Amino acid sequence: MQKKIKPSNKIKKTGLAPGTLVFTGDQKVNRPQVTELIYNQNSIKESLISSKAPLTIHSPQTDFVTWYDIRGLHDLALIENFGKFFNIHYLVLEDIANTRQISKIEEYENGVFIVVNAITESTNESLITTEQIAIFVGDGFVLSFQEDEFDQFELLRKRLNDDKGKIRSKKAEYLAYSLLDMMVDKYIETINKIENDLYDLENEIIFNPVFRNKIKLYEYKHQLLIIRKAIYPLREALSRVMRVESVIFDNSIKLYLRDLYDHTHQVIDKADFLREIVTNLQETYSAELNNKTNHVIRVLTIISTIFIPLTFVVGLYGMNFKYMPELDWQYGYYYCLGFMGLLFICFLYYFKRKKWL
Amino acid sequence: MQKKIKPSNKIKKTGLAPGTLVFTGDQKVNRPQVTELIYNQNSIKESLISSKAPLTIHSPQTDFVTWYDIRGLHDLALIENFGKFFNIHYLVLEDIANTRQISKIEEYENGVFIVVNAITESTNESLITTEQIAIFVGDGFVLSFQEDEFDQFELLRKRLNDDKGKIRSKKAEYLAYSLLDMMVDKYIETINKIENDLYDLENEIIFNPVFRNKIKLYEYKHQLLIIRKAIYPLREALSRVMRVESVIFDNSIKLYLRDLYDHTHQVIDKADFLREIVTNLQETYSAELNNKTNHVIRVLTIISTIFIPLTFVVGLYGMNFKYMPELDWQYGYYYCLGFMGLLFICFLYYFKRKKWL
Amino acid sequence: MQKKIKPSNKIKKTGLAPGTLVFTGDQKVNRPQVTELIYNQNSIKESLISSKAPLTIHSPQTDFVTWYDIRGLHDLALIENFGKFFNIHYLVLEDIANTRQISKIEEYENGVFIVVNAITESTNESLITTEQIAIFVGDGFVLSFQEDEFDQFELLRKRLNDDKGKIRSKKAEYLAYSLLDMMVDKYIETINKIENDLYDLENEIIFNPVFRNKIKLYEYKHQLLIIRKAIYPLREALSRVMRVESVIFDNSIKLYLRDLYDHTHQVIDKADFLREIVTNLQETYSAELNNKTNHVIRVLTIISTIFIPLTFVVGLYGMNFKYMPELDWQYGYYYCLGFMGLLFICFLYYFKRKKWL
Amino acid sequence: MQKKIKPSNKIKKTGLAPGTLVFTGDQKVNRPQVTELIYNQNSIKESLISSKAPLTIHSPQTDFVTWYDIRGLHDLALIENFGKFFNIHYLVLEDIANTRQISKIEEYENGVFIVVNAITESTNESLITTEQIAIFVGDGFVLSFQEDEFDQFELLRKRLNDDKGKIRSKKAEYLAYSLLDMMVDKYIETINKIENDLYDLENEIIFNPVFRNKIKLYEYKHQLLIIRKAIYPLREALSRVMRVESVIFDNSIKLYLRDLYDHTHQVIDKADFLREIVTNLQETYSAELNNKTNHVIRVLTIISTIFIPLTFVVGLYGMNFKYMPELDWQYGYYYCLGFMGLLFICFLYYFKRKKWL
Amino acid sequence: MQKKIKPSNKIKKTGLAPGTLVFTGDQKVNRPQVTELIYNQNSIKESLISSKAPLTIHSPQTDFVTWYDIRGLHDLALIENFGKFFNIHYLVLEDIANTRQISKIEEYENGVFIVVNAITESTNESLITTEQIAIFVGDGFVLSFQEDEFDQFELLRKRLNDDKGKIRSKKAEYLAYSLLDMMVDKYIETINKIENDLYDLENEIIFNPVFRNKIKLYEYKHQLLIIRKAIYPLREALSRVMRVESVIFDNSIKLYLRDLYDHTHQVIDKADFLREIVTNLQETYSAELNNKTNHVIRVLTIISTIFIPLTFVVGLYGMNFKYMPELDWQYGYYYCLGFMGLLFICFLYYFKRKKWL
Repeated sequence: MQKKIKPSNKIKKTGLAPGTLVFTGDQKVNRPQVTELIYNQNSIKESLISSKAPLTIHSPQTDFVTWYDIRGLHDLALIENFGKFFNIHYLVLEDIANTRQISKIEEYENGVFIVVNAITESTNESLITTEQIAIFVGDGFVLSFQEDEFDQFELLRKRLNDDKGKIRSKKAEYLAYSLLDMMVDKYIETINKIENDLYDLENEIIFNPVFRNKIKLYEYKHQLLIIRKAIYPLREALSRVMRVESVIFDNSIKLYLRDLYDHTHQVIDKADFLREIVTNLQETYSAELNNKTNHVIRVLTIISTIFIPLTFVVGLYGMNFKYMPELDWQYGYYYCLGFMGLLFICFLYYFKRKKWL
Repeated sequence: MQKKIKPSNKIKKTGLAPGTLVFTGDQKVNRPQVTELIYNQNSIKESLISSKAPLTIHSPQTDFVTWYDIRGLHDLALIENFGKFFNIHYLVLEDIANTRQISKIEEYENGVFIVVNAITESTNESLITTEQIAIFVGDGFVLSFQEDEFDQFELLRKRLNDDKGKIRSKKAEYLAYSLLDMMVDKYIETINKIENDLYDLENEIIFNPVFRNKIKLYEYKHQLLIIRKAIYPLREALSRVMRVESVIFDNSIKLYLRDLYDHTHQVIDKADFLREIVTNLQETYSAELNNKTNHVIRVLTIISTIFIPLTFVVGLYGMNFKYMPELDWQYGYYYCLGFMGLLFICFLYYFKRKKWL
Repeated sequence: MQKKIKPSNKIKKTGLAPGTLVFTGDQKVNRPQVTELIYNQNSIKESLISSKAPLTIHSPQTDFVTWYDIRGLHDLALIENFGKFFNIHYLVLEDIANTRQISKIEEYENGVFIVVNAITESTNESLITTEQIAIFVGDGFVLSFQEDEFDQFELLRKRLNDDKGKIRSKKAEYLAYSLLDMMVDKYIETINKIENDLYDLENEIIFNPVFRNKIKLYEYKHQLLIIRKAIYPLREALSRVMRVESVIFDNSIKLYLRDLYDHTHQVIDKADFLREIVTNLQETYSAELNNKTNHVIRVLTIISTIFIPLTFVVGLYGMNFKYMPELDWQYGYYYCLGFMGLLFICFLYYFKRKKWL
Repeated sequence: MQKKIKPSNKIKKTGLAPGTLVFTGDQKVNRPQVTELIYNQNSIKESLISSKAPLTIHSPQTDFVTWYDIRGLHDLALIENFGKFFNIHYLVLEDIANTRQISKIEEYENGVFIVVNAITESTNESLITTEQIAIFVGDGFVLSFQEDEFDQFELLRKRLNDDKGKIRSKKAEYLAYSLLDMMVDKYIETINKIENDLYDLENEIIFNPVFRNKIKLYEYKHQLLIIRKAIYPLREALSRVMRVESVIFDNSIKLYLRDLYDHTHQVIDKADFLREIVTNLQETYSAELNNKTNHVIRVLTIISTIFIPLTFVVGLYGMNFKYMPELDWQYGYYYCLGFMGLLFICFLYYFKRKKWL
Repeated sequence: MQKKIKPSNKIKKTGLAPGTLVFTGDQKVNRPQVTELIYNQNSIKESLISSKAPLTIHSPQTDFVTWYDIRGLHDLALIENFGKFFNIHYLVLEDIANTRQISKIEEYENGVFIVVNAITESTNESLITTEQIAIFVGDGFVLSFQEDEFDQFELLRKRLNDDKGKIRSKKAEYLAYSLLDMMVDKYIETINKIENDLYDLENEIIFNPVFRNKIKLYEYKHQLLIIRKAIYPLREALSRVMRVESVIFDNSIKLYLRDLYDHTHQVIDKADFLREIVTNLQETYSAELNNKTNHVIRVLTIISTIFIPLTFVVGLYGMNFKYMPELDWQYGYYYCLGFMGLLFICFLYYFKRKKWL
């Protein structure tokens, strides 16, 4: 197992007035990258805005979907610019900058604010790392904020450029749904991978339990806990969204959200199932280890029980007393050997009956 | 225990747009088999449609129930054909093809979509394997999609042909209920089998705990977890269906659904009960093992405690010092034997009092 | 502990059409016994109907309560006769015959159907066995179906004959309530008995833990799980009945049902409490066992640590080298004894300081 | 730990008709004591009614609160007298006599019936014992039934006599609330005492784990379970009372009930918290014990591993073969000593590297 | 770990009439300190009122927010003064003085009463200590009661003085929200610190498990339990407040309360997640320890199994029987050595095959 890098908690927020914008993550990108994408079924325009040049934000146009994807969150002024331009509540901006949020979906007057902890590419194989993705969907526009340099939505953007398929023909909220769907699919893929690995491990543990596997079990449980922690609040949020009336999410999109809800449900269901499997394996591993210890001690006891008394007997006749009649007997040695042989057989019989042999 | 075959996860779905039909299971059938069954109380017509020939789907007729049973899901074009013909929502088709769904019942405008994880015949005795059965019930027709070559509904189809009983006189939704009932009955049968086996194992473990049994307990728990995971969402879905108004499932069928709900409840109830029993057995097994280890160590300690000091004594008089007065005493040897006998008795008394003997 | 008799699961139901009457229990009675009881406050008539004679069922009369008590369920024709006569839904008959139901209360158009798993007399002291009692209450009549030969309701019937008390003056549903009350009282009695036994066991385990007690703890937990499994669904059913409007159970009877609900609540509450006590005892027992093992190993270690080095020393001077100067010293033997005495004292002091002695 | 006195379960109730008054407790009082207290803000009259004299019950007067406190429940005729006089439902009387109820609050037409399991003075320090207190509050009167001779309400009665404070100026239901408040305060006091004791024990266990403490942990958990079992149903009952409309408990009293609810909540909260602490301590204790065992075994292994091979060597040269060349070497003894010294150092180095020393 | 100071429970409340003001904490402040702060957007006036001087409480003025912060709760007369002046219900005053409350938010006619268990500065690094903060918000005024001398709100007061920011422009309830937000932020900070420490500990435990770490795990779990116990009721209270209509908390403030709710949710979520991680680590630690014990015993067994029989052999030929033919053989010694070498190799091979070496 590789050492884990602990998350930094540099900035202490306590003591500040509520509503102060503070970035609580690590600065993972040198300069934030903003990708602008304006499309409808017929045309699409993508522009990568360098953060150095003065930023020009375009208002959402009728019949077009405007998508701003911001990667890197330490440039608080940038976030505030978007906030002002799209008239976003200050609490939302605070939550975007504070990267330790749990997944949630919140309804505001002019849009829906979504926070998801998405799986990000990790250099460390044995640990799942998540980054916070914040999405704000308004009328005709979507803002997405990625904590990390790694672009979660690269494939989707490519596909949007390439074909005029389903997403291009739909509205901003369908784009938001597509982003969510992508991130949830990543979880499904990850948990299926864990499931496969676990099936291999299961065979290995039952037929050859070594300690290295115990560490692996520990890590799988850790990963499953991380997945559950990330997805559970999302499912709760989706369930709530499906129940309430919403300005942004109308009934046509709700059918898709129900599908998404099913997928999150599936992830949690499998995560819980696999955790039970891991617990079951851990208990079996422990029993197996105890069984082995019992076996080792039994070997020790058998050897000791047989030879310690015999060693006493040979020690007895190794004494140097002047008057030890047995020593002078002609067949004393053979009597002694015979006696010890008898003792040996008795012990064997005893252990046989006790089923230790 | 036989090695388990791990499920394949060949196709990664992440990165595709939502709404893309992808088959995520293993291709278990060479070519999908479609069985058409059109019946009412008086007449019945069964035809096995070879998938090679161009498929002709018949529209449901008044007073007849049309049942298409499709076995094998990798032919996505076939699924899409049925989808188009019966005007089924694209999300439903997606769920049919994606065989890692959890059990659910969903209401659509023109029908009810049901997903069940059914127990399938397995070559491996020690593991329960499930396949995904998808059912779509519309007005006058039932579509059933089986992942596997193994035909879950063979018996039912035979019975439909043979007698004009209850099912023949009822509508499409009663057929759907009958399919569900069959799959739930299989679970009841399976869990009753586990219960019986467990009662045998219980006697064996309490009277003769061997490690092999620990592995068996592990496997029973695994199986019970699989059953619970498959049935629990179905019960939740049935409970929801019974509460809401439905176009397809009217009140006459709901009485039967309540009965089905009771059966799923019964399976979960027994699965949970048996899991507690298994846990209880595992704990007793562990205590028994610890008890055995304690016993073995006690034997070792008794033998060592008695003979190690005695061996010291005989070693003492085996020393070769020139001047050891005891060696020259006439009865030294007998004194020595007497002293060791005394020691022996003291130790026996000590262990007796400590209740180690 | 006596060996447990495993329940038989002779008949496999899977593959039959739903709604097929199948008896899933053991045939415990040679021929079913039917007791007819027709009473009001003034008169009472009891007749034991031999199942050989052609059965005459009497219609319920106004101002009279008609109670048919059927013992033994394998005569399916008999059950169907009653079913037809009293116009009972086919699903109810199915549930009566299928003796693996969980407790429930179901409302039908012409009556209420109740299933209870009641405690039955057992030849095996260490296990609680339950039988399924099915009750159907309609307007003016009660049908009760007992799985077993053992008559649960003998006392009640006797009391009905003897005095014109409370039950005689009330309607059919009060009789049904009385039957339920009797069965729940049996559970209260059983759980109180377990509580008493457990208090004895508690004292015994804390002052003298032997392995036999661990098995007893296992059995108490098993019994408590059986009780909980039987009573929990009944409480849920009662809670539901109390909430909904019912044709049969009006408000006057609901006060009594609330009392019954309290009693089931009390049983579950105590069962859960006792299970926690048993778990607590199990943990204490395990700790005690570990403590004992630790103690035994400590004794072994003390003896070995003291005598193994001493035995080495005496072995050293038992060597037969020609030139070993110490052997020729006049006081070599005494020096040696002195040295070993010192070693002995050092070890004693060491173990004293380590608090092992 | 003192032996626990097991509760008696003398009377078996099964088989009796429901609604039969049976006293299920121990007869703890020779003759029941009835204290009558009639007061308003200006006057108060207390009379102790000997149960021998014919009992005269006074009707509640306008502007006065009449409180009958009955201690000792085996005189069923007395309970029935009160029942008839105040027109109390028979199920209530049954519950008063049956002292194994769980805490509850039930609304009847002419009053509210409250059952609380209150902490009673115990001669046994290490166990909490509870007695059942039943309270019936009607319009202008309160009846309280204590199982025990010990008077729970002595202080309150004294205070009522002494000052014309808050209770005297309020109605019967405020008196009932005061009785409840007193009993809940007793729980708060008890749980705070446990908390303090546990903090002491925590320090002791972490710095010096002895087995006696394990037994103490067992007892604390037992006590916390008893407290939870007694208080949890009371909280549920209070929560229900606060939600529903009530004839007796109007809104003015509900503010006080909310306060009482908070207190029960506090007791349960702390009981659960402390149980987690005890569990945490138990696990730490177990780990500590395992650690100790590991340490002891390590000492044994080090000693054995060093000296058993050395003892073999000295045994080797203690053999009496005629032709053993080493024995005749001039420095054989010193070579041998040197070799053993080397072995000794090697082992020390080995254990050092393994970090066992 | 430092010894923990146990909380004192000097005053027993049982037996007092409900509604008697009793201070149940420790007197931590010599004399209570009252800080008066009256502000609006334009002006601010702070005065520290010595408790010796007669206290003058100012009525809340229109367009101003009046905040009284009282530190130290043992001066009950002071609390009663405020109570009378602001017309606060007696139950509230009782709760302020009784410092063992759980967090809650209660609506009264003229205000909202909030109790929070806030983290206070502790001299003991390894333990989180909480103090009870009570807040009463009425129309235009806030009263805050701190148990401790340590001023939770110093920073906030300073900021209020310094800039005319957000809080100054808002009403009393926003001030109350700010106080709450500050205390919740402290919890977030604390739990993030625990998370970081735990990541370090995780690496340490997996690569080098020593017992000291087990104690640390114990303490982290204890701290997480304290945090959960303090925050959980607050979240429940916030959730309830957000649902109901309130005179004081209107919709504008509810958006902020939702944010606060999210933060408490985040704390609980992370506390539960970390507790699972700690449990996972504890189990891994235990397995590791068992594994080590198994290893140590194996070493012991290998050494004993090899050398005990060899020692027996050399003892055998150390016997002093007169007639032992082997001793006189010329190569007897070498045969013997050879035989023992063979035995040695056999044992090595045996352990190799058993994978113990």
